Amino acid sequence: MAHPKTISVNGRDYRWPEAPTVVICCDGSEPAYMELAIARGLMPNVERMIAKGVDLRGQSVIPSFTNPNNLSIVTGQPPKVHGISGNYFYDRATKQEVMMNDAKYLRAPTIFEAFHKAGAKIAVVTAKDKLRALLGNGLTFGNSKTVCFSSERADQCTLDKNGIDDVLQMVGMTLPEVYSLELSELVFAAGAKLMHRMRPDLMYLSTTDYIQHKYAPDTPGANAFYIMMDRYIGELDAAGAIIVLTADHGMKDKHINGAPDVVYLQDVLDGWLGAGKSRVILPITDPYVVHHGALGSFATVYLEDGVDAAAVIQRIAALRLIQTVVSGAEGCAMFDLPEDRLGDIIVVSRDTKVIGTSHSRHDLAALKEPLRSHGGITEQTIPIIVNRRVSTMQQPLHNYDAFAIGLNHAVSAAEAA
Amino acid sequence: MAHPKTISVNGRDYRWPEAPTVVICCDGSEPAYMELAIARGLMPNVERMIAKGVDLRGQSVIPSFTNPNNLSIVTGQPPKVHGISGNYFYDRATKQEVMMNDAKYLRAPTIFEAFHKAGAKIAVVTAKDKLRALLGNGLTFGNSKTVCFSSERADQCTLDKNGIDDVLQMVGMTLPEVYSLELSELVFAAGAKLMHRMRPDLMYLSTTDYIQHKYAPDTPGANAFYIMMDRYIGELDAAGAIIVLTADHGMKDKHINGAPDVVYLQDVLDGWLGAGKSRVILPITDPYVVHHGALGSFATVYLEDGVDAAAVIQRIAALRLIQTVVSGAEGCAMFDLPEDRLGDIIVVSRDTKVIGTSHSRHDLAALKEPLRSHGGITEQTIPIIVNRRVSTMQQPLHNYDAFAIGLNHAVSAAEAA
Repeated sequence: MAHPKTISVNGRDYRWPEAPTVVICCDGSEPAYMELAIARGLMPNVERMIAKGVDLRGQSVIPSFTNPNNLSIVTGQPPKVHGISGNYFYDRATKQEVMMNDAKYLRAPTIFEAFHKAGAKIAVVTAKDKLRALLGNGLTFGNSKTVCFSSERADQCTLDKNGIDDVLQMVGMTLPEVYSLELSELVFAAGAKLMHRMRPDLMYLSTTDYIQHKYAPDTPGANAFYIMMDRYIGELDAAGAIIVLTADHGMKDKHINGAPDVVYLQDVLDGWLGAGKSRVILPITDPYVVHHGALGSFATVYLEDGVDAAAVIQRIAALRLIQTVVSGAEGCAMFDLPEDRLGDIIVVSRDTKVIGTSHSRHDLAALKEPLRSHGGITEQTIPIIVNRRVSTMQQPLHNYDAFAIGLNHAVSAAEAA
Repeated sequence: MAHPKTISVNGRDYRWPEAPTVVICCDGSEPAYMELAIARGLMPNVERMIAKGVDLRGQSVIPSFTNPNNLSIVTGQPPKVHGISGNYFYDRATKQEVMMNDAKYLRAPTIFEAFHKAGAKIAVVTAKDKLRALLGNGLTFGNSKTVCFSSERADQCTLDKNGIDDVLQMVGMTLPEVYSLELSELVFAAGAKLMHRMRPDLMYLSTTDYIQHKYAPDTPGANAFYIMMDRYIGELDAAGAIIVLTADHGMKDKHINGAPDVVYLQDVLDGWLGAGKSRVILPITDPYVVHHGALGSFATVYLEDGVDAAAVIQRIAALRLIQTVVSGAEGCAMFDLPEDRLGDIIVVSRDTKVIGTSHSRHDLAALKEPLRSHGGITEQTIPIIVNRRVSTMQQPLHNYDAFAIGLNHAVSAAEAA
């Protein structure tokens, strides 16, 4: 089938792929993980990629959480455009905390949808099912050209809903636990198999950061993950794919001598304003909290009518626990966020600090290791590793430039020669 | 001459070098400069170093200024130990602003001094003369084993004071202007020549960040610098040296649409407290201000007796211009700084913000390009590139681990095989 030379989506043009183009979003992959694993000689395939390609750093969007960044990568735009500013927002009209896992909250088409409509073959594999619906929005199945599923539900895939029904057999694995290295391994294993089986035009592989929350860079637990990842990346590279390896966000220690370094902001605000005058929303909150206790470095605060936002901002700033505390409008302008999905105040905490709501609402008993988390500016630096040289691009790079890099800026061997 | 197996200095042990060990401090080398120059294929020698070695990131000390970091690199310790917390401190006893370019302010021996006393051959070349006295402290000359000079005074070197008297002839250059790429080029050119002439045990090459203040990453002005540097690094590598390439600090845009993004903190404090009640010290200040107008992202404030420091901290925090504002004691604990050389308050500004004293005391007329500067946490990430694999080290790495990396952790080809 004839295809267009370029596809336009969300105001950016993307060239039709000259080779299968794979973007890997390695969840929580603070640059030090790969820097140090490579330094130990544990990632020979990524090291070869770098030798023939480039090893760059870029920025995640703020909040440096999973969903805002995954959706940014697959739409090529910040949350201001696609609307997914976190896992939760507060609907003032209905007074409900609303979870944004449903595709109805997505305000922009994905790059996949646009290429799919033009006849491209698309493969999307993500670790947790919470992302699948958002990433696969606008895709249709049963056409042998589209695959989209999560490792978490790899045993429930159907041709009608996922474009594939034999995932576990294909990869030769049993269904992994949600909290496991294998949940991410299945993403890569499926990617490598699908590369050969369907040779997609675009592939997106998105892992989960369970390991990165648990283990710091240069530890055996972390290195086991990167050794595993490197093996599959080697297969994709050998198959001739253009590979852009990036991350949704970084990951940092959020404890002092093992104790979580938490500010329970709802408790603080209730103390100042009285109960019921403010509502702290932590957009990191989701049904899977074992590995981070819903503690991250970004929060937004909704205030009841009559509460003086400027005065509250000033008092939060004076806590000195905080990197940035600004009005919702200022913060949305600063971080390219959608104003209607954030509150009256945006708070980003610094260094090891994380923000909680009320002490009583965080169950930290499940945290077996010292807290590591993300959400702030301190977790904004992410790797952008490409297995080809790249032509000049506007700086600074963002992870949501990944498809533009792979499709428009990765220089083919022929061009480079 | 027999030499000891290890040298102990400032509480750390360093192995005697098995090959000439070169630490390069590339002033203001924000990681993106080399990432992007390598991506363009402009640094083939550094790229080869990385292929056989490692490409890491580490942290500078805060304040992310030149002297505190150069002295940290050459002592292997933060400013708390060596005392050089900036270019200036305020002496409360004499009520004088004191410049710390003199070696009498240095509280720790350098790694060079310790190796020199044990008979090692040492070569130290720095761009500006302001650093030479500090870096060369404790070295003796006229023994054919020690060379220490600055590009700035390359024409005034003597065997008695510098261990060399033919620098310009040796490198085949005329004396460069202070504000030039050539001032740094002379550092590298001399390093390459000295590697052959004296084959030093330890070499330290420290450039100036005039180019980095002026030009952003991936611009022709910046790339010309890195192309130049790469050529000389290739010579050092070919000579069999162990090379650790790091930086004193990063460098970021400090303007909004071309206008410097300055908070004149002395004016603010005078407005709050009245004149003469506070004194803002900018440790970036030095006699060379053309390229940054003495504007950086770190300041310390001295208060007159009777002024309530906690209240001032709270008001500064409420400016929301600030990343961190803490008491002198807290800041010194946080950043490993010497309490007696900092004031009652430490202020680090965020993003593009820089801190000035009074508007009238900063002459920005000489700034021909939009302001780029450093000093803050935003400029703390620095490259650590080594032309050998390295064994496991405590994380996070700092630039002041550079000699430990080169001497103790760089794995020889024999060990790696």
